[in-house]
Amino acid sequence: MKKKIHIVKVGGKIIDDASRLHVLLEALKQISGSKILIHGGGKTASELGLRLGIEPQMIEGRRITDEPTLDLVTMVYAGLINKKIVAQLQAQQINAVGLSGADLNVILAEKRPVQTIDYGFAGDIQAVNQAALALLIEKEIVPVLCSITHDGQGQLLNTNADTIAANVAVSLSALYEVRLLFVFEKKGVLQTLDNEDSFIRELDHSLFQTYQAQGIIHEGMIPKLDNGFEALRQGVAEVIICKAEEIHQEQPEGTYLRL
Amino acid sequence: MKKKIHIVKVGGKIIDDASRLHVLLEALKQISGSKILIHGGGKTASELGLRLGIEPQMIEGRRITDEPTLDLVTMVYAGLINKKIVAQLQAQQINAVGLSGADLNVILAEKRPVQTIDYGFAGDIQAVNQAALALLIEKEIVPVLCSITHDGQGQLLNTNADTIAANVAVSLSALYEVRLLFVFEKKGVLQTLDNEDSFIRELDHSLFQTYQAQGIIHEGMIPKLDNGFEALRQGVAEVIICKAEEIHQEQPEGTYLRL
Repeated sequence: MKKKIHIVKVGGKIIDDASRLHVLLEALKQISGSKILIHGGGKTASELGLRLGIEPQMIEGRRITDEPTLDLVTMVYAGLINKKIVAQLQAQQINAVGLSGADLNVILAEKRPVQTIDYGFAGDIQAVNQAALALLIEKEIVPVLCSITHDGQGQLLNTNADTIAANVAVSLSALYEVRLLFVFEKKGVLQTLDNEDSFIRELDHSLFQTYQAQGIIHEGMIPKLDNGFEALRQGVAEVIICKAEEIHQEQPEGTYLRL
Repeated sequence: MKKKIHIVKVGGKIIDDASRLHVLLEALKQISGSKILIHGGGKTASELGLRLGIEPQMIEGRRITDEPTLDLVTMVYAGLINKKIVAQLQAQQINAVGLSGADLNVILAEKRPVQTIDYGFAGDIQAVNQAALALLIEKEIVPVLCSITHDGQGQLLNTNADTIAANVAVSLSALYEVRLLFVFEKKGVLQTLDNEDSFIRELDHSLFQTYQAQGIIHEGMIPKLDNGFEALRQGVAEVIICKAEEIHQEQPEGTYLRL
């Protein structure tokens, strides 16, 4: 039987809020066994960018990564956010190591080809270094991955953190029984935006398509769920969208994806 | 007989100059066997700080690290500079991993006690995690350390990179025969500032004191040399101050410290 591993993806609204982040890290500590934390950025990058005169550029919900923006997100994600999280985990006696995709060649990506949109230095994942992650995990080290990758030719790239989480989960499911948790500030995927108790307990792909067609599942959630369903299809044991407080539970309360 | 390891410390003037950095990383590749790269920052942090309205504060050649400055150096050193170096090393097939002192608890420090000067979030080194570094080295991984440390209680700290290099060298000299190289843009420690060929080939501690008294060795070099002599005293096999182009040579041209 494969060993279990928890892969926890945490998003911007928790990263931005010191008390929410603390709750998450406390819950992470209570997960017994192997775990990986994957984080994106939050408002910090945009706010710092504004102070530096770097205007955030978005097309279809994706950040366009020109060179100043790449430097900005590298500083904020791989530097400030990543190291603050690692220091807090070390204070909890969790032996964390913060990694970009370049470190140990953990996530190799390619610069997204220009078709109709030039996304700039956006990276599409080509390979996850399963052996490097497994080596750390077997030494009881907790990898903390940020959403910066590289192309193997010396160029850093900006990659969506949900996509990194899904790809890491798929890669490690060859070796481990993977529970992939997308953590955010709501109880799960909501049927009614303002009513948190309306969260959907089980979401299969046909129901997802129905809700999507009906506009019940809103835009920001769709790529996350697409990533989640793809991970399930490729062998990840469980994909759950839930609150930070739930991640260490045997059966976290949240939205469970089903094929 | 102990295995050899090269510990290479590189400073700001090389970090700031893409072509000089490239020369360094090419030479690093040519070092056979185990190696560690340790870097400080350069003008990038000060320039970015100015754009953000963070004025660099220096007392006795040391940066005073208030909270905005700590965030700034964490972003620039642990984020931008560290990850760019790691990506370039990966492009050369060197399996690098970028680390702050918090990662794997590699460098534990304490916030410098306030006496006459409050240095802010400056960290004095308490412990080097020899086992963690040795684990990486034995896996043929090249650690790339930046000058950010932590206190084990969740607080990041700013620590002089020369001091980190000397402490890492001392710690690893229990396991390895350590050659510690302080790399900078001159051939070695100069007797006459404007004449590069005046570099001192051998510098023992009494000559160092003489030159210091005579004002031949200038202020910026003194703490570096103090660190170097202390490393020798504590068991480091060789301490050499040299150019980037020399680091992979069997006998690099430069200033050799002697007790």
